[in-house]
Amino acid sequence: MGTLLYGLDLAGTFVFALSGATAGVKRGLDLFGVLVLSFVAANTGGILRDLVIGAVPPGAVSDWHYLGVSLAAGVVTFSFPSVVLQRWNPILLFDAAGLALFAVSGAHKALAHGLHPVMATLLGMLTGIGGGMARDVLLAEIPVVLRADLYAVAALAGAATVVVASALRVPFGVAAPAGAALCFGLRVLAIKYGWKLPVARLNKGGPGKSP
Amino acid sequence: MGTLLYGLDLAGTFVFALSGATAGVKRGLDLFGVLVLSFVAANTGGILRDLVIGAVPPGAVSDWHYLGVSLAAGVVTFSFPSVVLQRWNPILLFDAAGLALFAVSGAHKALAHGLHPVMATLLGMLTGIGGGMARDVLLAEIPVVLRADLYAVAALAGAATVVVASALRVPFGVAAPAGAALCFGLRVLAIKYGWKLPVARLNKGGPGKSP
Amino acid sequence: MGTLLYGLDLAGTFVFALSGATAGVKRGLDLFGVLVLSFVAANTGGILRDLVIGAVPPGAVSDWHYLGVSLAAGVVTFSFPSVVLQRWNPILLFDAAGLALFAVSGAHKALAHGLHPVMATLLGMLTGIGGGMARDVLLAEIPVVLRADLYAVAALAGAATVVVASALRVPFGVAAPAGAALCFGLRVLAIKYGWKLPVARLNKGGPGKSP
Repeated sequence: MGTLLYGLDLAGTFVFALSGATAGVKRGLDLFGVLVLSFVAANTGGILRDLVIGAVPPGAVSDWHYLGVSLAAGVVTFSFPSVVLQRWNPILLFDAAGLALFAVSGAHKALAHGLHPVMATLLGMLTGIGGGMARDVLLAEIPVVLRADLYAVAALAGAATVVVASALRVPFGVAAPAGAALCFGLRVLAIKYGWKLPVARLNKGGPGKSP
Repeated sequence: MGTLLYGLDLAGTFVFALSGATAGVKRGLDLFGVLVLSFVAANTGGILRDLVIGAVPPGAVSDWHYLGVSLAAGVVTFSFPSVVLQRWNPILLFDAAGLALFAVSGAHKALAHGLHPVMATLLGMLTGIGGGMARDVLLAEIPVVLRADLYAVAALAGAATVVVASALRVPFGVAAPAGAALCFGLRVLAIKYGWKLPVARLNKGGPGKSP
Repeated sequence: MGTLLYGLDLAGTFVFALSGATAGVKRGLDLFGVLVLSFVAANTGGILRDLVIGAVPPGAVSDWHYLGVSLAAGVVTFSFPSVVLQRWNPILLFDAAGLALFAVSGAHKALAHGLHPVMATLLGMLTGIGGGMARDVLLAEIPVVLRADLYAVAALAGAATVVVASALRVPFGVAAPAGAALCFGLRVLAIKYGWKLPVARLNKGGPGKSP
C-alpha cells in the first residue's frame, strides 16, 4: 500500500511538473525559471499539506526523488517544447491526471495523520490544486482553478471518495483507483462539454461587470 | 476567556470571508473561486501565524467550524451579491471589523505561545492583514494593505494594546474590546477622512514616477 | 562559528531589505508598504527554509534583531530614496550580496538540521531567492529570478560550495567566504556581461511568442 501511494505521488509529480514547465515555456522563462515552475507546480500542494499537518520536513523536501522527477519533466519540456505544445491543450490533460492522483494521495495522507474527515477531504483537494495555484501566482495571474470548469470540484470528488471509503473500511487499493478515475473523468468531461460552475449575477452593470 | 477568544475568531472569520467573497464576485469568479477566496481571506492570516509559532495543525484546519463559517459567508455573498455590493463600500467596513478582531486574537495567541512581545504584536498584525494580502495575491493585485490609509497601523495599534495590557496584567476581557475598538476606530476614521501614510518623494521624475 | 553565521544572516538581511524597500519606493507604496517589503524581501527565504526543516518559530520571528535590521534598512531607503536610486542599478548589487550571504548561511543551517546534501543545496538557494520571489509576488510581477541572468545559478553555486566543503570536512569558516565570493562574483559577472540562461525555442510563432 505504501508503495502504491508512493508511485501515485511520483506519477502525479511528473505530470504536474509537465504542466508547470509548459506554462513556463509559453511565458518565455529561461531554463531555470522553467525548472522552478516544474518543481512548484508539482510539489507546492503536497508541501503545503505537509506543513499544515505537521509532517516536516515535507516529503518533497526530505526525499530527493520528487525533485528528480520534477526536473526530468522540466528538462523534457524545455528540450522539446513544440512536441508538447502542438498537442491539443495538453496542459489540461496533464493537469487532470495530476489532479486525480494528488487528490487521492493527499486525502489518504491527511487521514493517516488523524485529520477530521471533512478537513482531510479539503487537504486532498489542496494537494491537487495547490501546485497549480502557486504556478499561476508566480506567473502573476489569477489562478485558473478559481475560474475554470469543475476543476476543484473534481478534486473534491476524488478526495471525498477516499475519505468515505476509509470510513466504510474499503481498502485504499480499491478506493484510490476509483477516486482517481472519478476525478479524472469529471475533469475531462468538464473540459469536453464546457461544464462550468455558476457565476454570481450582479444587477444593472454594477461593479462586477468591469473589474 | 477561551470562549471569548473563540467567538472573536469565528466572528472575524465571518466578516473577512464576506470581504473575500465580495472581491471574488466582483472579479466574476465562479462559485468555487468565491468560496476559496472566502476561506483564504478569512483564514490565511491565522494559518500563517499558527505555522510560524508551531501550532500545527492550525486552528483553521483542525477545527471545521472555521471552514463552515467561511463557506456560509461565501454562499450568502454569492447568492445575494447585489445586496452586499449596493451598500457603500461594504468591503472596507467588513475589513475593518475583521482586522480589529483578528489583530486582538492573534496577538493574544502569539503571547500565549511565548513569543517576544514585539513579535507577538507583529503576529497580531499579520493575523489581521495576512488574509487580505493572500486574497489580493490570488487576484494578481498588489495587496491594498501596502498602499492604503492606515490599514496595518490600525491593526498594529489593536495588537499592541493587547500586548501592553498583558504586560501590565490587565485582564484580556478588558484589553480585547479596547484593542479592537481602537483598531476599528482608527481604520474607520482613516477611511472617512482619507488619512494616509506618507509616500517617499523622489527627485526629478525619477524611476518612482513611472512604475 | 555561530557568531559568523549570525553576522552573515544579519548582513544579508540588511542588504536584501534595502532591495525590497527600493522596489517598494519605486512603486510608490506608502511607508508601511515599504517596511513590509523590506521585511518580506529580507526574511521570507529564511522563514520558508525554517518552516520546511521544522525550525519553528523561525529565526526571523523568534529573534527581533532581524526585524530591527529590516526596518532600519526600510527607513533609510524611505528617507533618502534618491540617494539609493541615483546609483547605477543598486538593487542588483544589493541583491547579489544578499544572495551570496543567504545561500551560504541557508545551506549551512539545512545541513545542520540533517537534510540530504542535495536538498540542503536547494534550501540554500531557496534562502537566497525566496525573499526576492515573495517581494515580486507582492508587487504582482513574475519574479525576476525566473527570467534573469544566472541569478539562481549563482546561489546554487554558493550553496553547493558549502555543502561539498562540509562533505570534505573543510571548516565552515573557510567554505563560507569561498562560497559567498563565488556566488557574488558569478552574479556580478552575469550582470556585467549579460550572461543569460537559454530560453526554449518554439516553432512557427506558436503560443510562446505572444504571452
